[in-house]
Amino acid sequence: MRKFVAVLEYDGTSYHGWQLQKDLPTVQGNLEQALERILGNPTRVHGSGRTDAGVHARGQVIHFLGQWTHSMSELQKGCNALLPGDIAIRGIAPAPEDFHARHSACSKTYTYRILNQSLRSPLLRFYSWFIPEALDLVSMKEAGASIVGSHDFAAFGSPTDGTSSTVREILHAGWLSDEKDRMIRFTICGTGFLRYMVRSLVGTMVRVGRGRMTPSELAEILASCDRSRSGPTAPPQGLGLESVEYKSSDGTRWSP
Amino acid sequence: MRKFVAVLEYDGTSYHGWQLQKDLPTVQGNLEQALERILGNPTRVHGSGRTDAGVHARGQVIHFLGQWTHSMSELQKGCNALLPGDIAIRGIAPAPEDFHARHSACSKTYTYRILNQSLRSPLLRFYSWFIPEALDLVSMKEAGASIVGSHDFAAFGSPTDGTSSTVREILHAGWLSDEKDRMIRFTICGTGFLRYMVRSLVGTMVRVGRGRMTPSELAEILASCDRSRSGPTAPPQGLGLESVEYKSSDGTRWSP
Repeated sequence: MRKFVAVLEYDGTSYHGWQLQKDLPTVQGNLEQALERILGNPTRVHGSGRTDAGVHARGQVIHFLGQWTHSMSELQKGCNALLPGDIAIRGIAPAPEDFHARHSACSKTYTYRILNQSLRSPLLRFYSWFIPEALDLVSMKEAGASIVGSHDFAAFGSPTDGTSSTVREILHAGWLSDEKDRMIRFTICGTGFLRYMVRSLVGTMVRVGRGRMTPSELAEILASCDRSRSGPTAPPQGLGLESVEYKSSDGTRWSP
Repeated sequence: MRKFVAVLEYDGTSYHGWQLQKDLPTVQGNLEQALERILGNPTRVHGSGRTDAGVHARGQVIHFLGQWTHSMSELQKGCNALLPGDIAIRGIAPAPEDFHARHSACSKTYTYRILNQSLRSPLLRFYSWFIPEALDLVSMKEAGASIVGSHDFAAFGSPTDGTSSTVREILHAGWLSDEKDRMIRFTICGTGFLRYMVRSLVGTMVRVGRGRMTPSELAEILASCDRSRSGPTAPPQGLGLESVEYKSSDGTRWSP
């Protein structure tokens, strides 16, 4: 058995999230079915982390074990031919024996897109959060800057995978607006994320943008570690997992 | 009864095209239902033209007659609240008595998007034509330039609406590539279009881009008026109706 690493793009609209669930369509379930057909054996896929129902990915990373004597390109093409149109393998490669999509990851990058205009957009409805009210981007940027660094994020999510620590390090985070496509984008890169953390942070920063909270209040909520004080969780369709970063043995960071 | 003009955005993925069809979901059918509920009377909607199943619009223009004593903003909001998420009214205004969404139009602008990379994209699958083979954009630009002007386009489509002329004037047409989002875009503005004309032109220009035809052969096909000689019709999901242009009484061009 060899180990493989692959990068995925998917449209999460039709799925009950990443993680395998009995009798429900999931991204992991579709992948495992396609790999079983190609590799001829039941195949367990390990993702860098879960994404929730409706959340998208341009750079989810997975690993799996299998027997494969042909080229990587043939493995990728074979899988993509079997996968539905809303899931695709962007790249595939042999992985070192000790590689683990989740445990080896040193950081992940997400973007959250807000359509901030007076009218809802039929063409962007599955890929953005529509907010017709004016948002104060300057305050949102100030709030975003206050979460950079190592913090206990207990106020913004619960730990996944049974680990009890809620401390995570945010390497960078920031809001950008794009006049051309009427979008406001939040990009966040961190060593790890709690469940709902990005969406809870976005929901709380939007409260700041709406003038219902000051940037310093967000910092106070962060310090309080009180989950009940954070803002509403932003809807899933604005969120996308952009990339997962790993460290080589020489210390340089790379994305598969 | 007053006359109103409105601009629409829609995602054509789930519809059997613009035009009303018995027992099938269409954009016109959904609009007429919403307007009947708001205005209290059966309402016929006139579009600037049909779009085929799977084709999108960011600037379809319609007109209709109705009794409405409240504000335009209330009419728009009321309709948008009743319309499904994949159709929205972007703007609405009273129209001159002699305005007609189709007959008064002096030109229309379409874009066609091609995803030209080796891998299909789950997130763009309903909004682009995926072509993994390399395309020669220089030749495609040359072919595109040869269709500008007044020509008999019988080789690229059939007349709509019972008019027998197949002569149309293309005001401008051109290909642009965008490295950032991996898209090649064709924009075409003309006084009118035959049925399937944009998609047939795109399909033929893609043959040029693939090196199976020279730009001058496209010009020969145009001159031949022979429908059997044009390339395959490009798939619908790459096409979008961007805007419809009208002339004011003083001769200036405007889009609602």
